Amino acid sequence: MSYKFLSIFLLLISLSGYGQKPPINKASELAVDQDRLEKSIFELAKFGMKDNGETSRVAFSDADIASRTYLINLMKNAGLEVHIDYAGNIIGRREGNDGTKKAIAFGSHTDTVPDGGNYDGCVGSMAALEVALTLFENNVETQHPLEVIIFSNEEGGLLGSRALAGALSPEALLVKNSTGFTQGEGANRLGGDVTKIDQAARKKGDLAAFLELHIEQGGILDTENIDIGVVEGIVGIKWWDVEITGFANHAGTTPMNMRKDALLAASKFIIAVNEVTNSFEGKQVGTVGRIAAEPGAPNVIPGKVLLSLEIRDLSSEKIALVFQGIQKRAAEIAKDSNTAIEFHPIDANAKPALTDRTIQEAIAVSAKKLGLSHKQMQSGAGHDAQDMALIAPAGMIFVPSRDGISHSPNEFTSAEDMANGANVLLQTILVLDRELK
Amino acid sequence: MSYKFLSIFLLLISLSGYGQKPPINKASELAVDQDRLEKSIFELAKFGMKDNGETSRVAFSDADIASRTYLINLMKNAGLEVHIDYAGNIIGRREGNDGTKKAIAFGSHTDTVPDGGNYDGCVGSMAALEVALTLFENNVETQHPLEVIIFSNEEGGLLGSRALAGALSPEALLVKNSTGFTQGEGANRLGGDVTKIDQAARKKGDLAAFLELHIEQGGILDTENIDIGVVEGIVGIKWWDVEITGFANHAGTTPMNMRKDALLAASKFIIAVNEVTNSFEGKQVGTVGRIAAEPGAPNVIPGKVLLSLEIRDLSSEKIALVFQGIQKRAAEIAKDSNTAIEFHPIDANAKPALTDRTIQEAIAVSAKKLGLSHKQMQSGAGHDAQDMALIAPAGMIFVPSRDGISHSPNEFTSAEDMANGANVLLQTILVLDRELK
Repeated sequence: MSYKFLSIFLLLISLSGYGQKPPINKASELAVDQDRLEKSIFELAKFGMKDNGETSRVAFSDADIASRTYLINLMKNAGLEVHIDYAGNIIGRREGNDGTKKAIAFGSHTDTVPDGGNYDGCVGSMAALEVALTLFENNVETQHPLEVIIFSNEEGGLLGSRALAGALSPEALLVKNSTGFTQGEGANRLGGDVTKIDQAARKKGDLAAFLELHIEQGGILDTENIDIGVVEGIVGIKWWDVEITGFANHAGTTPMNMRKDALLAASKFIIAVNEVTNSFEGKQVGTVGRIAAEPGAPNVIPGKVLLSLEIRDLSSEKIALVFQGIQKRAAEIAKDSNTAIEFHPIDANAKPALTDRTIQEAIAVSAKKLGLSHKQMQSGAGHDAQDMALIAPAGMIFVPSRDGISHSPNEFTSAEDMANGANVLLQTILVLDRELK
Repeated sequence: MSYKFLSIFLLLISLSGYGQKPPINKASELAVDQDRLEKSIFELAKFGMKDNGETSRVAFSDADIASRTYLINLMKNAGLEVHIDYAGNIIGRREGNDGTKKAIAFGSHTDTVPDGGNYDGCVGSMAALEVALTLFENNVETQHPLEVIIFSNEEGGLLGSRALAGALSPEALLVKNSTGFTQGEGANRLGGDVTKIDQAARKKGDLAAFLELHIEQGGILDTENIDIGVVEGIVGIKWWDVEITGFANHAGTTPMNMRKDALLAASKFIIAVNEVTNSFEGKQVGTVGRIAAEPGAPNVIPGKVLLSLEIRDLSSEKIALVFQGIQKRAAEIAKDSNTAIEFHPIDANAKPALTDRTIQEAIAVSAKKLGLSHKQMQSGAGHDAQDMALIAPAGMIFVPSRDGISHSPNEFTSAEDMANGANVLLQTILVLDRELK
């Protein structure tokens, strides 16, 4: 109630021109306040800051909960009506001047991985709030309602965006994150209500668009010195456990030509994964990240190797093609090395999510208009936008991660890059507001 | 005292011809009793036998200690004077008929690795006792004194043979085996005396020769269907820890061409170890048995890999050459893959021990005379003979290990192969008795 009163008060002031900057008539000349955006990142970092100056703000932690009051206040200052949905998402909304239009939503998340950094989801979240504030203080009206969403628990299960997309399984609510709380308990801690969490789902078509600004989390923009990434889609992921069986034997008494060395076969396999992945045009990646050799003694020829295989691409068909190529090479390696190579699929897969072409173009046009270089790219990591793409046309804007580092206290994005991203987000919203039904 | 009385009694019986097989005049026609030898292996296996029928008789264990009464009795039955030296070795001796000659010693060990098998050192030990008994019951005198030695704790530190060779370090006495006893405590448990263990050392030249029969522990004789291995030497061993440093990064957001994948470099290194080792003529072996990749998650490119490198050969120069070849390839791999590869030598090396040429020839001649096929080969595993070679001309006879398996309940050598080995040992002793000063 007090907020509404304040809002009307501010509206009157704005109409009178008192206490306002000179109104900007051309919305295309609007720009966010880079210093204010950077300061808001530093303010947010104080929630969960440890003695060493690094921040750990895992979802459902006291630090996460404390930070929400700060976020809600920022939303209110930007003229947004705030509510917490049943999944613990913070949603700030302002109406548009055309009552027939659906909302354009934008936002990200502010929770971190344990011992993470201050940029990951924070840049997109604080930029969304800065954009809303910039529109508000410049009296820029939109035809579409606008919604700023700060999603709950992105890092530990995409709780908020899955609930919004109606894609949350009952089992997922039982999964704990590093705080020890389950996602269900966590939703309650954030002011949601796990018993009504199904009602957090938005219908397909309920939103005109969803936009997420995020740090790249990779090194492409930084290396190529490009300002803005226009995300074509968020890759699908498939995992396998690979088991290579040879024969363990005494390394001193078994001649080289009588060995069935599972680690030697595994080495050929790992190189084959690299070669097959690189043999296709495109941005697919193939990775072996985990390996164990048994029995694992310096003087025993390994009899068994267990390793992980991960393939990611925007196209499920491409993932299948790469895997077929790897299987073929594995069969040859097994035959040549007298070993057996088996693949065990792991149920931890994500389907690719393509972004909307119209939104991609709106982002590219906005970047160009702002004099920023941009490049089409895929997101190799999962994001809230991946779920939101299930119910709305979605788009993502990437800004550079220095040295490609993320999920680390060393992650960094410059204030200028953050402001560039926020300005592209702002202009894209305005473009879409004009173009979308 | 009672033994001496029995001994004189048996001597009288033997002189009277009572209870004896007809004396064999030609020593070259002597042969061991295959069934008796096999039965003695089964009897020994009862010490430390578990409910599942498998044997674990680790040095210093109650089972090890209990078995020694059985061994001592067998020695006494073979007309040997028995004593336990300060290192816990059981030594049975009979004098020769030429008081100027030094002893020909032969034997092996009866301790096992935890959950090992019944053949490893047991075959050579029981064959030595069977040879002594065969000589005794056939009244075969030798010019040289004979000594049968059952070495203490071969598997856990070569306690007995190192002490005999004067090669035992004070630190080694503090090393525990799986029983929890240190080698020093263990020597006392076996009837030795750790405070006088230095006095167990025999002077160089104190023995005319040392012979050890042993199972091959590899698959060469079994695969090539050869009866007897004439061991040219026991390989030297060098170990390194190898550290490969790349850069850990997000597997989804780091394109293939921007990776510094330590595991991919490690795979190329492991293949290079194999190729370089195989690029030289000879029997050298190179092995990577242990590997760890960090951080070790399916969705993170490994930033660091730690692995073991072991090279074995009869020649230290060959080991150095192979290592040089591996270092050269490692430098190329590091450069091509943007990683660093470092070698850290490990202080767990053994120097090569060559066997005596005269003894090699005596073994080969004996095998040939018995109609047994034989082959010159190296021992890829360490043995008591490796230490004994420091103080005496040494020789080793190998018999086949089925499927090359050892240090396992599945190790097996047939009764016929054991008897073949024992007969070669017997004939070699007789050849050396004639030939050696």
